[in-house]
Order: sequence, then C-alpha cells, then structure tokens
Amino acid sequence: MAISPEAFRTAMARLGAAVNIVTTDGPAGRSGCTASAVCGVTDLPPTLLVCLNRNNDSNVAIKRNGVLCVNVLAHHHDTLSSVFAGLLGHDDAAQRFSHGEWERLATMAPVLADAAVAFDCRVAQATEIGTHTVFFAEIEAIRIEPDAAVLFWFDRSYHRLPAA
Amino acid sequence: MAISPEAFRTAMARLGAAVNIVTTDGPAGRSGCTASAVCGVTDLPPTLLVCLNRNNDSNVAIKRNGVLCVNVLAHHHDTLSSVFAGLLGHDDAAQRFSHGEWERLATMAPVLADAAVAFDCRVAQATEIGTHTVFFAEIEAIRIEPDAAVLFWFDRSYHRLPAA
Repeated sequence: MAISPEAFRTAMARLGAAVNIVTTDGPAGRSGCTASAVCGVTDLPPTLLVCLNRNNDSNVAIKRNGVLCVNVLAHHHDTLSSVFAGLLGHDDAAQRFSHGEWERLATMAPVLADAAVAFDCRVAQATEIGTHTVFFAEIEAIRIEPDAAVLFWFDRSYHRLPAA
Repeated sequence: MAISPEAFRTAMARLGAAVNIVTTDGPAGRSGCTASAVCGVTDLPPTLLVCLNRNNDSNVAIKRNGVLCVNVLAHHHDTLSSVFAGLLGHDDAAQRFSHGEWERLATMAPVLADAAVAFDCRVAQATEIGTHTVFFAEIEAIRIEPDAAVLFWFDRSYHRLPAA
C-alpha cells in the first residue's frame, strides 16, 4: 500500500519541530524562507542539515551563494514566520527582509537580531532526494539568546515553549 | 573562530525537537534507541531522515537490517525515552524492548503500540557525515494516534504539547 502525499503530510504534522527562517546572501542575492526540516548532524565538524523544496527560490539562491543561516524563531516571531513562509503576499523573497531586524555574523547570510539562536553556516554538501534538497552546512558562528522562549510548529499550529 | 563541540551542543539544545524511538529488526537482530534528529524530507517518494551516531549499536543494526521505524513519543513516554537512551542501565539495546508494547506493521521493525505516530520505513540511502550517519528512509506504513499529546525535548528537558 503506497503512502499518499496527503497521508504523508497528515502524519508529518504530528512530528512537531522548531520553526526557523533560513536565509542566504551573496552573488545570487538575498533570500529567505521559513523551514521546519532542520536538525543537528554532528559536532565534528559542527554541522546541521536543512531540507528545502527544489522549487523554493531560497534553494536556488543557497546553492549559488554557498552560505546559509538558520535563525531559530523566538515566541514572538509568529508573524515573521508567516511573512517568510510567503503567506502574507511577499512572493519576492528579498522583500521579506523589510520585516525583522537583520545583521551579519561570519558569512554574508542575514542573521535575525533577536533569534532564539542563529547558526551561520557554509554549505559543505547537498543531496537531492525526490522533490527536495538536503543541505549539509558547517557552522562558522553561533549567537544565542539564552532566555528566549521559542516557537514550535505542531499539529498545524504554533505553540510556545519557555526556556528551562 | 572554530565552534567547539560544547558550544555546538549548547546551541543545539535551543533547537527543540520531537522525541522519537528509532527501532529495527532483521538479520542483525532487534535494536532501538532514542533520537531527536529526525525530519520529513519529501512526499515523493514519502521519505524521512534519521541521523544517528556511528558508535550507536542501532546504527550498525539498521545498516544490516535495511529497515527502521520512527516512533514519535506521546506525552507519557518520558521513562521509555530514558530507557532507549540507555540512561537506565539497558546497555544491551535488545533488552530495552521489555519496556513498552511492541507490534509490527509493514517491515520487521518494532512499532510502539501507543506511539503518537509511527513511520515504518525501508532505508533507501545512507550518507556518512563526520561522526554520524544520515539515513534516508522510504515510508511503507504509517499509524497515527490523532489525539495523543506529544513529548518535546528542548533546553535539555522534556515538554508536552497537546494535539490541536
């Protein structure tokens, strides 16, 4: 019995995750999108992975720029999350940056000033799996807001979790 | 400035995630461990990924068995999570299955009877990244408990989130 795309999405909604804005900048220009498929891979070398649809503009830009920043969203970033998910009419990914305050750390990738944690990375490897690309990215700089409550996406709605 | 393993782990603790028990069975025998580095990849074909340390017994068993099940833990599974994390003295991964009620779906991999959602998968591809292996696994069967509250791991402690 094959699993339909709908059954896959319904089940995946039960696998909650942090909400992140993944950004990039460089020769291909600035771009960013909301993504929940992010996880740590190894601390040697410090590496995380990001999974993005190949139709996503940010996917193309990350491939050309070779850098990305994972900005883990804090509790008050639900509107920003919607902006970078393209839900509020910002089809042009570069325009989305008029929302939020953006800085830089080690790479050119935009860093959200009040992210719960930001991982500024250089892409080490990319693997194409079906409709998506999995980017393996080595972390060059980290910035933490230790007390920030964070945003979670679970069962198709936002939840908030306080810091310990 | 290189990121130390400690700095990596401190920052990754701020990237919360669902808590899962990843299991396998087959020619290499039954094995299972707790893992948070799991995410959906693509619905075509329905695929998820699991990231496991290469020193983990379950990593070796999954490679030989070619199947795995991701059991997303419900709110009451915190002790089971600790058992499969090897925190309660069950060094032998096969012994851990005396805790919890286990069944089968499409593959040989053990399925937790009251998991919030279970993804029964066949391994399609494995990529070695530093100390870890990333398994890309195609989903052959899914079972959902739609009303189960789930367990999250964030800031080095458990949290619970209700279904919508």
